[in-house]
Amino acid sequence: MKLRESHQSFGGKVEFWEHSSKITQTLMRFSAYTPPQTPLGAIIWLSGLTCTEENFMVKAGAQIHLAQHSLLTICPDTSPRGLNLPGEHETSDFGSGAGFYLDATTPGYRGHYRMASYVMQEILPLLVDHFKIAQDKISLMGHSMGGHGALTLGLKNPAHFRSLSAFAPIVNPTQCPWGQKAFLGYLGEDQSKWLEYDACALISEGKSHPQKILIDQGLADGFLEEQRLTRPFEEICKQKGQACEVRYQIGYDHSYYFIASFIRDHIKYHANILKTP
Amino acid sequence: MKLRESHQSFGGKVEFWEHSSKITQTLMRFSAYTPPQTPLGAIIWLSGLTCTEENFMVKAGAQIHLAQHSLLTICPDTSPRGLNLPGEHETSDFGSGAGFYLDATTPGYRGHYRMASYVMQEILPLLVDHFKIAQDKISLMGHSMGGHGALTLGLKNPAHFRSLSAFAPIVNPTQCPWGQKAFLGYLGEDQSKWLEYDACALISEGKSHPQKILIDQGLADGFLEEQRLTRPFEEICKQKGQACEVRYQIGYDHSYYFIASFIRDHIKYHANILKTP
Repeated sequence: MKLRESHQSFGGKVEFWEHSSKITQTLMRFSAYTPPQTPLGAIIWLSGLTCTEENFMVKAGAQIHLAQHSLLTICPDTSPRGLNLPGEHETSDFGSGAGFYLDATTPGYRGHYRMASYVMQEILPLLVDHFKIAQDKISLMGHSMGGHGALTLGLKNPAHFRSLSAFAPIVNPTQCPWGQKAFLGYLGEDQSKWLEYDACALISEGKSHPQKILIDQGLADGFLEEQRLTRPFEEICKQKGQACEVRYQIGYDHSYYFIASFIRDHIKYHANILKTP
Repeated sequence: MKLRESHQSFGGKVEFWEHSSKITQTLMRFSAYTPPQTPLGAIIWLSGLTCTEENFMVKAGAQIHLAQHSLLTICPDTSPRGLNLPGEHETSDFGSGAGFYLDATTPGYRGHYRMASYVMQEILPLLVDHFKIAQDKISLMGHSMGGHGALTLGLKNPAHFRSLSAFAPIVNPTQCPWGQKAFLGYLGEDQSKWLEYDACALISEGKSHPQKILIDQGLADGFLEEQRLTRPFEEICKQKGQACEVRYQIGYDHSYYFIASFIRDHIKYHANILKTP
């Protein structure tokens, strides 16, 4: 592991790291905020399309709240980098910056685009081994594509994450343009293979999380209807009995200005759960 | 005036505007945060080298505090844009993104690089006429080159700004590499003409501000010694009796992570002064 940058922030540290990943077979970058006091737990933040490990640390205004609640946060990059696969760098919603937190099975991509396994098998152990976080003190949140990542990884691995939250998550990617394009490219034409990466499908087939899931969704979000954000998940959770608090925020869009406005509540929500034994 | 972007943020609005400037003879951009309640006053933020009107709004995490104190903040761009003057786009510390909040007198630049007059004659009236801020409810702060701007404009126009603060300001530009390069390019070789844009020189010749000036300075700031940040100003203020609270922050660098860590205190400081009749 190589420390690329370190900045003092609210008495703690924002750090940017690089390490060699066995899962993606590339160098991977992530950022971490370490609070001034010994952390009582950690939250993994998964970012959305086009983001790197940097966006959340720069734009979300989270450090003031993480310092207050003594929580560490780690932000992986959104895809492997440094490759040159067919179609990888042509559009903003597939390939680099758009890993969709799944394990690809299509030629070329299957050797590297394995962000689901990367989070579970490298980021989680990193939190425990390097950052000394207890393995039962880790929660998960994300935005848009990263909200999709948080919900799908969290529902498939409920024992690994104490609590889940999301901002404007892509909850039904098998039924929206972003998801269909990505899944076709990463998983191929057999749509039955797509369902394990669709939060609505996971709830529908009986997956669940023991904690109430918190979701904030802006009502001025231009992607809300077209990309099937939030609403189908709220409906299926009601049907299946998954506890879920969805807050529709009037006037808010899909940007980090929206995230920054409500990140305090998400951090407090995770802190309250992580605080309990 | 043309509204380019608007984002809801902490119940208020982050807006990005463009207008045609008589002073710079170009289009100019600025951003503004309007709090949810009627603002009790405004703070002008002046950014540092390479910044645009965007950096502060994205990176400083100020909106949560501005909303709490009901303060508006406006951030001008750091130079005119869209020109192609000799040497204007070659380096990051002169020309575009590096206007230094002065009125240039050298050929080419004197027709456009007039950021001192732009702030005083266009941004101030804009706050009063467009944003409906009382003219005695305006304060001024900035970072690095923008800290230089805040101190020099504030000391030369104390009646226009209720309070002044700065993060890691360039306080003695006539004696440091950044300032010398810029002043030579904008003001020419006669160094006596440089002094009116040097905060230390202004205090030395008797200029003052009725309020205590607040300055935060990181001690891990790599520019601290070479660019003569903060310290010479603290010394000359002591000699001349200008009230000045300088806080040296151990471990903090020159970045927005530093600014974000202490912006709450600056906003509270200005709010307390702006609140008084």
